[in-house]
Amino acid sequence: MPKPTPLSGFPELLPAQRVVEREVIATLSRVFELHGFANIETRVVEPLDVLAKGGEIDKEIYVLQRLQAGPDQTAADATLGMHFDLTVPFSRYVLENSGHLEFPFRRFQVQPAWRGERPQEGRYRQFTQADIDIVGRDELGFHHDVEVVRVMVEALGALPLPPLTFCVNNRKLIQGFYRGLGIEDVTTAIRVIDKLDKLPAEVVAAQLVEQAGATEEQAQRCLELATIRVADTSFVERVRALGVTDELLETGLAELAAVVEGCADVVSDRVSVEVDLRIARGLDYYTGTVLEIFMAGYERLKSVGGGGRYDALASDGRTTYPGVGVSFGVSRTLLPLMADGVLAGSRPVPSAVLVALTDEESRPAAQRVATALRARGVACEVAPTPAKFGKQIRFAERRGIPYVWFSRRDPDGGEPDAAGALTHEVKDIRSGEQVAADPATWTPPPRTCERGS
Amino acid sequence: MPKPTPLSGFPELLPAQRVVEREVIATLSRVFELHGFANIETRVVEPLDVLAKGGEIDKEIYVLQRLQAGPDQTAADATLGMHFDLTVPFSRYVLENSGHLEFPFRRFQVQPAWRGERPQEGRYRQFTQADIDIVGRDELGFHHDVEVVRVMVEALGALPLPPLTFCVNNRKLIQGFYRGLGIEDVTTAIRVIDKLDKLPAEVVAAQLVEQAGATEEQAQRCLELATIRVADTSFVERVRALGVTDELLETGLAELAAVVEGCADVVSDRVSVEVDLRIARGLDYYTGTVLEIFMAGYERLKSVGGGGRYDALASDGRTTYPGVGVSFGVSRTLLPLMADGVLAGSRPVPSAVLVALTDEESRPAAQRVATALRARGVACEVAPTPAKFGKQIRFAERRGIPYVWFSRRDPDGGEPDAAGALTHEVKDIRSGEQVAADPATWTPPPRTCERGS
Repeated sequence: MPKPTPLSGFPELLPAQRVVEREVIATLSRVFELHGFANIETRVVEPLDVLAKGGEIDKEIYVLQRLQAGPDQTAADATLGMHFDLTVPFSRYVLENSGHLEFPFRRFQVQPAWRGERPQEGRYRQFTQADIDIVGRDELGFHHDVEVVRVMVEALGALPLPPLTFCVNNRKLIQGFYRGLGIEDVTTAIRVIDKLDKLPAEVVAAQLVEQAGATEEQAQRCLELATIRVADTSFVERVRALGVTDELLETGLAELAAVVEGCADVVSDRVSVEVDLRIARGLDYYTGTVLEIFMAGYERLKSVGGGGRYDALASDGRTTYPGVGVSFGVSRTLLPLMADGVLAGSRPVPSAVLVALTDEESRPAAQRVATALRARGVACEVAPTPAKFGKQIRFAERRGIPYVWFSRRDPDGGEPDAAGALTHEVKDIRSGEQVAADPATWTPPPRTCERGS
Repeated sequence: MPKPTPLSGFPELLPAQRVVEREVIATLSRVFELHGFANIETRVVEPLDVLAKGGEIDKEIYVLQRLQAGPDQTAADATLGMHFDLTVPFSRYVLENSGHLEFPFRRFQVQPAWRGERPQEGRYRQFTQADIDIVGRDELGFHHDVEVVRVMVEALGALPLPPLTFCVNNRKLIQGFYRGLGIEDVTTAIRVIDKLDKLPAEVVAAQLVEQAGATEEQAQRCLELATIRVADTSFVERVRALGVTDELLETGLAELAAVVEGCADVVSDRVSVEVDLRIARGLDYYTGTVLEIFMAGYERLKSVGGGGRYDALASDGRTTYPGVGVSFGVSRTLLPLMADGVLAGSRPVPSAVLVALTDEESRPAAQRVATALRARGVACEVAPTPAKFGKQIRFAERRGIPYVWFSRRDPDGGEPDAAGALTHEVKDIRSGEQVAADPATWTPPPRTCERGS
């Protein structure tokens, strides 16, 4: 076939970049597991009636068809779509397997999702996400809201990323405030306020009047609320100063303050938590805590993650499963950072050592050296051909392999194949230093034997 | 939504089963990396002209369509299919990125693939495979054939599976034998012989006569060749005793003997390598070494893996990329073993410790205990509610968490929140043993802190 070209919206990584992605996923997974989250994977397809809910996302759903409908074609084939996030398949998984799960069920999931949207920086048709959620049966303590935010702050704080900010809000706070203010259509008001990052304040105010039935005065107070942004619990007094009283508002204020206080010991230079009362998240199913994650210098990507509390993540009519979770956009974050050179893979191959060949006959001896090194966890490969040593060293250099191993027949003689009859040296091709080494004991200095995952 | 039911052909794992799958993938990946294989992932879709080659597989290809064609719908959307193996996307990846790869390029890839075939035991519509391949530019030394087989023998030998057999053959041996024998249509003859596991020998012999233009006598000799099955290099003499001479046959004999000899030091009770001259593998692109992997007691699954040498894995018209690789069917192997209880996950959650709560006020102190344990790599979770201790212990039991941690206010008094004012005990709920413990130093005994991955 002719040389293929990349498919727009379906980015792929070169081996050295994939090393970075794997390290990121391994780090996230390790933190999630330390907090007792179990890993699951869901199939990539769902029945269309699970996916398509009549919303904006519907037209981005990819549907599966068989290329040629054969006798094995079943009706079900025609009604499968690929998941566009990990929340929908997870809630279906919880319902389907509820009898086999212990609640509260804590899971993490790192998988791709697919959306047929127009590709742009940070937006892809296939993209990987890392999600954590805690799901209860019938009930789920509020403290889990604090917990999932803490865990994601800790996990992302372990990654080599530009500074991140978790912008947190609470739907009860907004809803209670709007209700206490006397706005009739609270749901519409939330949807309109959510456009504040795209539209000027005056336009949003006008829409609050037109679409949510607010007065000019009410619209102004909504905007005042939405401009409160602080890194501590001082928002409580500032909201109270706006003079609205409502029971739900008080609950929201208390919950939001608890999230901020609960994260105080895990925030750092790398990850901060801020109250931002403008954050609403468009999705209707959030019912309490809501958050979006932003990356310094990459505000153009909008959020790189988000999540919140949903009192009905799933329901089968008899039982309701409340949940709280946070999703992190692995592709959305890493791909722009890689494109900008902020994140770069150090080595495209896991090998720390290339075992050089004197001639083709020395391959078995070289393999024994490699086996001895691998037995102690040193990744290595034997040279593909017995080229001149200089060429073998350049081969290692191009692959990013830091050490080259040379074995020579011992001048005292003996069989070339017998390990005892060889003398060994290992060369650090970065420094040029070459020292005697024993395949049974040598390991690369810690700094240079760092591996892919 | 009503309680969903599983989708036929799209199996999913419960958390404890997923632990097993992750361990298997982690073990395979570790061995592959020790041998210098770099990991890549390819997008799940390919242009249809890359996938559909007019073969049997075509009608199993899933094609992507957008649910609603919006203004963003591009012509390309309509011509994307999901990959049905990892070889086709890999060869496309090699062509597309050849300028950025160092050859011989060694990669491993663990991803799902999709086929719209009729689901049955070991055959799924979504299934995970683990592939290793070495690809050269223009040329690739034969010793890499030996290497990939060795690496896969070593990797699979590290898994807790029933005994596996690598049945190895060489297409040059078969082709040379048929040619030396005087059979005209060698390709058809290979395809017919490949049916020996499905059809009786007489039928295969008749088809060799009818379809490949063989005489009765030639067909008989083909069958004799195909019945040779030995675990050492004695096949060389047995083939020669059949009285056929051909240059290609000699090359095939030498290569196959080299594979068997080259694996002699890595085979074990768990993984053996056998010469089986019946193995042809239907696919036309194999040109030398071919192999299939079978699992003892699971012969009904047919092979659980396979691979071989292809002199033109990929070609862009100017450059040809020969390759050799082996693929292992992760889903095909693990799912039947899990269904039979041969493989079972020990713990559905990664947590080794549940930190119990005396009351809701003790949660911050419990969180500090958890943080101290996690700092030393001990996965743990704080109890969701301050239920009676017996209930908290049963909660841990149901989740498979072996230890429960209790903190009590020190009788000497002090603030309940201050870590210094608490005494701690940890209970092994399997033995009932309960001992004093310090959150800053306690770790579970090695045997019981085994973790998911």
